[in-house]
Amino acid sequence: MTAKIYPVIMAGGSGTRFWPLSRKDRPKQFLPLAGDEPLLAATVSRLPPLARAKETFVVCGPAHAAAARRMLPKLPEQNFIVEPCARNTAPCVGLAALHVARRDPRGIMAMLPADHHIARPGAFRDAIAAAAELAERGAIATIGIKPSRPETGYGYLKLGPRLAARGRKGKGPAHKVERFVEKPDLVTAARYLADGGYLWNSGIFAFRADVILEEIRRAMPVLGEQLDAIDAAFGKPSYKRTLSRIFPECPSISIDYGVMEKSKRIAVVPADFGWSDVGSFAALPDVRPTDRLGNVAEGDAVVVDAHNAIVIARGGRPVAVVGIDDVVVVDAGDAVLVCRRDRAQDVRQAVEELTRRGRDEVL
Amino acid sequence: MTAKIYPVIMAGGSGTRFWPLSRKDRPKQFLPLAGDEPLLAATVSRLPPLARAKETFVVCGPAHAAAARRMLPKLPEQNFIVEPCARNTAPCVGLAALHVARRDPRGIMAMLPADHHIARPGAFRDAIAAAAELAERGAIATIGIKPSRPETGYGYLKLGPRLAARGRKGKGPAHKVERFVEKPDLVTAARYLADGGYLWNSGIFAFRADVILEEIRRAMPVLGEQLDAIDAAFGKPSYKRTLSRIFPECPSISIDYGVMEKSKRIAVVPADFGWSDVGSFAALPDVRPTDRLGNVAEGDAVVVDAHNAIVIARGGRPVAVVGIDDVVVVDAGDAVLVCRRDRAQDVRQAVEELTRRGRDEVL
Repeated sequence: MTAKIYPVIMAGGSGTRFWPLSRKDRPKQFLPLAGDEPLLAATVSRLPPLARAKETFVVCGPAHAAAARRMLPKLPEQNFIVEPCARNTAPCVGLAALHVARRDPRGIMAMLPADHHIARPGAFRDAIAAAAELAERGAIATIGIKPSRPETGYGYLKLGPRLAARGRKGKGPAHKVERFVEKPDLVTAARYLADGGYLWNSGIFAFRADVILEEIRRAMPVLGEQLDAIDAAFGKPSYKRTLSRIFPECPSISIDYGVMEKSKRIAVVPADFGWSDVGSFAALPDVRPTDRLGNVAEGDAVVVDAHNAIVIARGGRPVAVVGIDDVVVVDAGDAVLVCRRDRAQDVRQAVEELTRRGRDEVL
Repeated sequence: MTAKIYPVIMAGGSGTRFWPLSRKDRPKQFLPLAGDEPLLAATVSRLPPLARAKETFVVCGPAHAAAARRMLPKLPEQNFIVEPCARNTAPCVGLAALHVARRDPRGIMAMLPADHHIARPGAFRDAIAAAAELAERGAIATIGIKPSRPETGYGYLKLGPRLAARGRKGKGPAHKVERFVEKPDLVTAARYLADGGYLWNSGIFAFRADVILEEIRRAMPVLGEQLDAIDAAFGKPSYKRTLSRIFPECPSISIDYGVMEKSKRIAVVPADFGWSDVGSFAALPDVRPTDRLGNVAEGDAVVVDAHNAIVIARGGRPVAVVGIDDVVVVDAGDAVLVCRRDRAQDVRQAVEELTRRGRDEVL
């Protein structure tokens, strides 16, 4: 392969599922949820030797740009692409494609969520390299993860026919994608798992900058024109003003829904590199060491006679958990959360209640 | 009745079931568990017009004497009886009896645990008055509580024959006590409840000072001699030294086991005044208002979609509890506890673990 890979890290997410660790000004990707490094920093750390810092881009919102730059001092200033506001992934990808195309029109963008965990970075890089090879030849390549459980929290990809296995060094062939499947119910997810012809949609893609811009123009012509208008201002004094005017008007649609699902050029690289989207506190036992009773304990946690508990004690004081299973306890110092592990996605309800009460100091 | 009532409040308890609210230097009776007043202060507040401050005694340990005096400034200095060490209730009662007898040999001592809650103080005072009448005539009178559930955490009294109902104004007759019963198992407790002939042993007693000293000398002759030796030093410069030498050698036995169960003079006044011994966090819903879902919430608690949760947020920060039932969450500021409500008595296991870890600052 001769084309360069330009990792584009999508760090624009905001969310409330990791409250009270996460806050408006410190969303999930800035937290060290799966180890010592924040997820965003780990996303960059696992790239070499696949890509270099000067070819790595980060897309994020204005509220987090300074923190992202501080976290990633090796990345050049101009590689931080600041979205004026969050408009889902289609405009994000389009804006990043403009930046990469200005530098290298046939450069291969590897779109990487900033808030995922990957247990085996070597296998991850192999998969990205394989996707990049497909991308170089004009494909929109996705990474599909071999399911290990009937997960209802992920979208799925239904495998289509095999593609030629050129250059994959025995890693198994890439496939066409027959279709994208929305998050299934449990019965359907179990069927997908048994079937074997479905993969988890990791949200990790590779494509050439010129190819994705062409696909966006085809599938989302309005967004295509908006991107052209932004591109026309590139490098001019009016750029920032133009971006601030146009970007908020872009359709807030995911790249999956807006482009991928309508494209004929989608290929998938099946992979298995210990992937997790770290969707909520309930996912921490998948990405961290547990004790022999299945507990995750961090900081000043005192766990007595409990199983499958997740106890994060970052408040500088002991947090004792006694005789209770399947609980999530998080002490962030200025706020404490207790919830049932299978209700971890409902943490947002606490955030909503605190918002109603005007408790901005902990939001 | 002509004899005076001398309430003797037993405030020597130390325990770990209310950690992290309770600490070595701030045991349960100093906590406002059932309302705005600490339990000890509430125990004194509910006495008038039954007794006056100058006739009210408090027995406690040396570590808590200063705090008890600060909490109860209306009680005379000399009414605080400081045990050199905790030796269970028989030596406590004996020492208090020496103090009361020096002032009024036939004075009626009303022995009151400092850490119980009483919902209906008027009915409580009526019961104490009835017990005092029996005591005046030489009985050792206990208060027996009509059971409302098959409680396995309390001792029981089996009712014997009725006593003459003199002066009880339709409150129901007093009985002889047939026997004291240890904490039963659930099947036995259910049988006691159905039987109707059993009452909870409240640990509240009334007797004349001279009578209890006589009974102690009969049932526990060694303790009787030890008390005589302490009494001989009363008012002398050697008193404190004598007490410090003899008291720690007294047998560590409860008054129930050491004296009551062997006495022929036991009578019981059946009563129903909303009594709770506030045995653990699990008892708080019995002694505090709950919301319509059965939750007890205090301080900065944010309870979302939970039932029968007990959330005490005294740390000056929000404590959010989401989608979890029957949980106890306590934020004391410098330590946090989470346990299942039916495991609230096992809080001591957390204290033991913190003791092993040498975390004295939160013990």
